[in-house]
Amino acid sequence: MLQLYIGNKNYSSWSMRPWVAMRQLGIVFEEVMVRFDSFAPNSQFKQTMRALSPTGNVPLLVHDGLAVWDTLAIAEYLAETFPNAGVWPRAVADRARARSLCAEMHSGFTALRSHCPMNIEAHLPEVGAKVWAEQAGVRADVARIAEMWSTQLQTHGGPMLFGAFSMVDAFFAPVCMRLHTYDLPVPPAIRAYMDRVRALPAVQEWIRAALAEHDFVPEDEPYRTQR
Amino acid sequence: MLQLYIGNKNYSSWSMRPWVAMRQLGIVFEEVMVRFDSFAPNSQFKQTMRALSPTGNVPLLVHDGLAVWDTLAIAEYLAETFPNAGVWPRAVADRARARSLCAEMHSGFTALRSHCPMNIEAHLPEVGAKVWAEQAGVRADVARIAEMWSTQLQTHGGPMLFGAFSMVDAFFAPVCMRLHTYDLPVPPAIRAYMDRVRALPAVQEWIRAALAEHDFVPEDEPYRTQR
Ligand SMILES: N[C@@H](CCC(=O)N[C@@H](CS)C(=O)NCC(=O)O)C(=O)O
Ligand SMILES: N[C@@H](CCC(=O)N[C@@H](CS)C(=O)NCC(=O)O)C(=O)O
Repeated sequence: MLQLYIGNKNYSSWSMRPWVAMRQLGIVFEEVMVRFDSFAPNSQFKQTMRALSPTGNVPLLVHDGLAVWDTLAIAEYLAETFPNAGVWPRAVADRARARSLCAEMHSGFTALRSHCPMNIEAHLPEVGAKVWAEQAGVRADVARIAEMWSTQLQTHGGPMLFGAFSMVDAFFAPVCMRLHTYDLPVPPAIRAYMDRVRALPAVQEWIRAALAEHDFVPEDEPYRTQR
Repeated sequence: MLQLYIGNKNYSSWSMRPWVAMRQLGIVFEEVMVRFDSFAPNSQFKQTMRALSPTGNVPLLVHDGLAVWDTLAIAEYLAETFPNAGVWPRAVADRARARSLCAEMHSGFTALRSHCPMNIEAHLPEVGAKVWAEQAGVRADVARIAEMWSTQLQTHGGPMLFGAFSMVDAFFAPVCMRLHTYDLPVPPAIRAYMDRVRALPAVQEWIRAALAEHDFVPEDEPYRTQR
């Protein structure tokens, strides 16, 4: 039995990655949502998650009692356990590059992540314009993303970064959400890829559920005081 | 032909990981050192590395023309290419946990990493004492490391985190260097593991080379103005 623990779909960018990958690749799992109240040590969220994993974070994959935490470790576990699901691209060189891109995402893009937290339900173009004008780090992050995606789309001809959908597109799906919410300026080919990611059935399903949530989590809302 | 591009051995914690892993596991490679002058876009270092990889960072693995960047992607590439080298632990559950620990390191421990940058040649116990007193984040990071290592050493009985040496120990080798340089307080079992890591032939070789370097890189020296 495969269970994926996730946080709020509106806010939890890390949760979105394995959820979208599994759903889109047809890997069956049970979703367990642990809603964010706050990230304080005594919050319901932290107490629940700490009982299951040492970091107390989501996402967490539990497979017949084995706890696998952290998105990249979950990705590799899925690739090993479901070798025919298409988690990674099939060619050795593509797979190596796919992992380089995911690892780069996993430890990087900190300016974009901190100034433009994922918030699917919100539309914040004015915030985006201000962040864009003031934060050179955000402009650099978006420039690197645009360069990376363009290279991939040119190499493989789309529609996804390595042709067919794989874990890499799931890793960048929350970036598509952010670019959209904050309406950051990107070239047309990048916008078109964003639209294709947003149109994936698994992403559509995630977005619909995010919009149906009615939580307001202050930790994830630097720019609003209410919805 | 396998080439590993690295930065200064005294400073470059990310470079140390795949280098130590490959050397200790007997994976033969050619080392290419690109010394840090600075990390400014027009530095020699950045210009050299950007010509080879889009992030312009070290470490970078090049295998017959294929560039694999980012430590975690390099780890997986090595595991695939040398399936019998022991990059990851052999049992599925151990391997999953090993990847969780490496991924946790890869994206976390930011307080320890920023306040106690790796500096093998230096001995900075006064800085360590001040950082320890002032930075709750550093104390939390070290507490998590001590908890993680204790669990692993108890489960597998040592000497390394999963019994035999694997990529995980290489991932935490720079942490051992930091705990040592800044003389941060750790329980005896943790100190003993640190000493075992420092005594590994590959780590000894890395340390000796670090001590023989004579660069002073201001970006990596928040606490000194000279050696
Ligand atoms: N490196 C982790 C990051 C996970 C993470 O930061 N998750 C957030 C939610 S998106 C969380 O659980 N935060 C709780 C906290 O910060 O205490 C991964 O890739 O899974
Ligand atoms: N996530 C990367 C981090 C690599 C990294 O930050 N490397 C440093 C040296 S230890 C670097 O190349 N810095 C150059 C820069 O910051 O411009 C990895 O795991 O390889």
